[in-house]
Amino acid sequence: MSSRTGKEILNVLLYSSRPQTQNRLEEAELVAQPSKYGSLWPLPQKVQLSEVSFKLTSSSFRIVDAKDSTAGPSCSLLQDAYRRYYEYMFGIAKRQQLNKGRRTGPSELTELQVWITSPDSECDSYPSLTSDESCESLPHSYHLHRVAGIQLVYEDEYGAKSINSTTISDFPRFAHRGILLDSSRHFLPIKVILANLETMAMNKINVFHWHIVDDQSFPYLSRTFPQLSQQGAYHPYTHVYTPADVKMVIEFARLRGIRVIPEFDTPGHTQSWGKGQPDLLTPCYSGSKPSGTFGPVNPILNTTYDFMSQFFKEISAVFPDAYVHLGGDEVDFTCWKSNPDIQKFMDQQGFGQDYSKLESFYIQKLLDIVTTTEKGYTIWQEVFDNGVKLKPDTLIHVWKGNQQQYQNEMANVTSSGYRTLLSTPWYLNRISYGQDWQGHYKADPQDFKGTEAQKKLVIGGEACLWGEYVDATNLTPRLWPRASAVAERLWSAKDVTDINDAFSRLSVHRCRMVDRGIPAEPLFSSYCPHEYKGI
Amino acid sequence: MSSRTGKEILNVLLYSSRPQTQNRLEEAELVAQPSKYGSLWPLPQKVQLSEVSFKLTSSSFRIVDAKDSTAGPSCSLLQDAYRRYYEYMFGIAKRQQLNKGRRTGPSELTELQVWITSPDSECDSYPSLTSDESCESLPHSYHLHRVAGIQLVYEDEYGAKSINSTTISDFPRFAHRGILLDSSRHFLPIKVILANLETMAMNKINVFHWHIVDDQSFPYLSRTFPQLSQQGAYHPYTHVYTPADVKMVIEFARLRGIRVIPEFDTPGHTQSWGKGQPDLLTPCYSGSKPSGTFGPVNPILNTTYDFMSQFFKEISAVFPDAYVHLGGDEVDFTCWKSNPDIQKFMDQQGFGQDYSKLESFYIQKLLDIVTTTEKGYTIWQEVFDNGVKLKPDTLIHVWKGNQQQYQNEMANVTSSGYRTLLSTPWYLNRISYGQDWQGHYKADPQDFKGTEAQKKLVIGGEACLWGEYVDATNLTPRLWPRASAVAERLWSAKDVTDINDAFSRLSVHRCRMVDRGIPAEPLFSSYCPHEYKGI
Repeated sequence: MSSRTGKEILNVLLYSSRPQTQNRLEEAELVAQPSKYGSLWPLPQKVQLSEVSFKLTSSSFRIVDAKDSTAGPSCSLLQDAYRRYYEYMFGIAKRQQLNKGRRTGPSELTELQVWITSPDSECDSYPSLTSDESCESLPHSYHLHRVAGIQLVYEDEYGAKSINSTTISDFPRFAHRGILLDSSRHFLPIKVILANLETMAMNKINVFHWHIVDDQSFPYLSRTFPQLSQQGAYHPYTHVYTPADVKMVIEFARLRGIRVIPEFDTPGHTQSWGKGQPDLLTPCYSGSKPSGTFGPVNPILNTTYDFMSQFFKEISAVFPDAYVHLGGDEVDFTCWKSNPDIQKFMDQQGFGQDYSKLESFYIQKLLDIVTTTEKGYTIWQEVFDNGVKLKPDTLIHVWKGNQQQYQNEMANVTSSGYRTLLSTPWYLNRISYGQDWQGHYKADPQDFKGTEAQKKLVIGGEACLWGEYVDATNLTPRLWPRASAVAERLWSAKDVTDINDAFSRLSVHRCRMVDRGIPAEPLFSSYCPHEYKGI
Repeated sequence: MSSRTGKEILNVLLYSSRPQTQNRLEEAELVAQPSKYGSLWPLPQKVQLSEVSFKLTSSSFRIVDAKDSTAGPSCSLLQDAYRRYYEYMFGIAKRQQLNKGRRTGPSELTELQVWITSPDSECDSYPSLTSDESCESLPHSYHLHRVAGIQLVYEDEYGAKSINSTTISDFPRFAHRGILLDSSRHFLPIKVILANLETMAMNKINVFHWHIVDDQSFPYLSRTFPQLSQQGAYHPYTHVYTPADVKMVIEFARLRGIRVIPEFDTPGHTQSWGKGQPDLLTPCYSGSKPSGTFGPVNPILNTTYDFMSQFFKEISAVFPDAYVHLGGDEVDFTCWKSNPDIQKFMDQQGFGQDYSKLESFYIQKLLDIVTTTEKGYTIWQEVFDNGVKLKPDTLIHVWKGNQQQYQNEMANVTSSGYRTLLSTPWYLNRISYGQDWQGHYKADPQDFKGTEAQKKLVIGGEACLWGEYVDATNLTPRLWPRASAVAERLWSAKDVTDINDAFSRLSVHRCRMVDRGIPAEPLFSSYCPHEYKGI
């Protein structure tokens, strides 16, 4: 692809790559030559470029359903996508231009034919782990599924939109490519969530892991237990997600091929639940008396399980995805140990002093409850580590340790036959000075000792942006383009590892996000043709 | 001050301060009790609080000139400030409300009298290093200079604006409280600069150090040498500051009591200058032939000094402040060493192989040039370290080393009788995970071994936000509220060091910035009554 805009940017990047030692940072210098793949991100599995280029004009260009497409005008998901891509290509301002009888030039491309071939077009259903995300494009006639090749469009030296004849055959390396956002430590206004869903789609991220509640606040407005947010949200009206909000998020995501997997983490990380649901949490003791503080969910009361049954029945109805994330991480045993009723229960059950057995007791009952809702579940790795009995289709989410430790964990989980997701190297909330995206880019979820069969049990990974230091003011630039590095790792072929080529493409991809109104932060000294317009 | 809004926020902060170890960060936990000083930031030198409160209504409240004020209706700087503060107090939306004959209640405050007492009211002139920034407030009749006590206004439980009777006597500890922004590594649109000047004023920052050009780009459009930006900017039209832009920035700053000190750094950091000014930079040699690359400004040509004379004549006219920053940092001698003409000149001058003598030769000639423009100058510490002869009123800007090293440097500079500014501990571009504002808050520019006379030579400091990884997408949340920590260190009394009290006040101050449309990032898990509305 020959993009003059791209080349100009990259020449500047090359020029400006000398280190500024006022910052005393020794950075491995990247040689920023324009990539032969232009600004394609994530890189498709197969690309054949050609020098033949076509002009595109907003007045005559149309995206149309191919004759034999299995989805057509009645598929509103598809028609919405056409409109969105058209606006990305030509900009909203130019929609007013009408074709007043102008004849098309000899080398003008006037039609993008979209030919859906999969029998299930998912026009009205939800995306899933088994959705077909593959796509082929041929010169002149494009056969696409969902994601169009509009990253190929560039402006020539006169500002005219152009595209080079290009053949693409594409499919994702991993089926599960997620981003975790945390709306508990800080409330995230719906507008921020939608803007980031839009950006996820630009990066072929297909899972929004919504860590919706935690210790700090409970913004999910439950129809069954409205007191949970009434008492547990930062504010019962301004800092909650109503059923309509949640529905909007799910539909906005669906139209972009993104699954929404909510996480309701128990038995730890539940301080905010206790405010609106008395007796749900374990009372901690100081000596022989309750101290007034509370610990994890109380695992010894029947009322706890009654509550969970009703609660997860609602959740399974509200969130259509086949999976729910049940958390299960970081259970602190201190409070359980202090409570005499818990101690008595431990004796009765013969658990001795092994509180991980009590944790497993709770989790097993919870998993049985969720199983009745016919959902699959994802859990953080501790649940597996503690030996809880799990359904074979359980997803184990690995997040702990250093590189060696998480690679051992991936080996252990897959040798036990479970499917797994990796997040450890992708905790994007942990910031540091310099180009940390390179570390995120280099991590590979299949780099561990194991058989081919084990490797196949790795279904993907998630970039996590925990919310202690993140809210609407800084979330978007902190997430992008750092999460784009993870997106390419999870989409593109395993051997796509050239860091210089990635730097070049990602720099232009970042400017494309900025051009579309997303404040994606810079990788290094550089400029975008159109800088971000907000503050 | 008793602010219910403040208390609510802080209760939440207290509640949410339990660590989230998914992030494996061991953080010194702050005890977040509401401060008795409410949300005052930076903390005034003297505050006497009272329980007596008054209501404020937008329909009847007025800010007026006191009878004996030395500045009145003809002082547009003051009248502009009244309007700005009124909008901060009541919000733009409520301006429409008219006072339809409503009588004021018994405990309503209807008037803020502003009594300017200094003979020079600076209505039409520019702020300077010697501007009087002190202010007194008394119950009922406020005598203020420039910055009003609107941080005392809060909403009571019914949303009514209220203020407690409070006596404040205030003045800054240091006269020079600056922020450096870098518009070379990334171009910063004017809108971003203005929004941050507004925020500087909210934090009593009174110097904008504009690091306007550097190696990467030359966005300053010079009337005398238009080729500098024509060739050296990232783009000659979209990525430049025109004379009108610069004038607007200076006036916007002036109305807020902020000085604009431009930096034109030479002889290093000048790659972008060479594009539009042939022969300005030293040609580097590879063996006996020019390599095609260029080094620092060429110090051996008369044309260099002719150029600098004309250039700084323009700069001294365009920027009204009494000071200009001349840089002088990080001169790399490699290119000079390679050049046979430079070697010959070194021999002639008897410099031997000591290239710092050549650097001093250049700088001394430059300082003589700038002296003829009747400007004072600030230089980075290397110029002092290299023994360049300096005028007694030169400001030495300390930026290098670890704590011990910069404290030694402060001692050396002041024992030589020079005034100094500190920046080393306040390189805000260097980010790390967690509450790094605490480290910025704890640094004190007078913490070094020296006499009282030496300490008095410390006139302040600057927070620096270098631009390698910062542009319009992420500048504002990265700067605020981290720079607020520096602002309080430089304004408030030396013994204002209670980190818990600071956390409490700063948390509310940060929400106030958010309320005013500034995306200041959170300190920790928490919420603001009105979250940021952008993305």
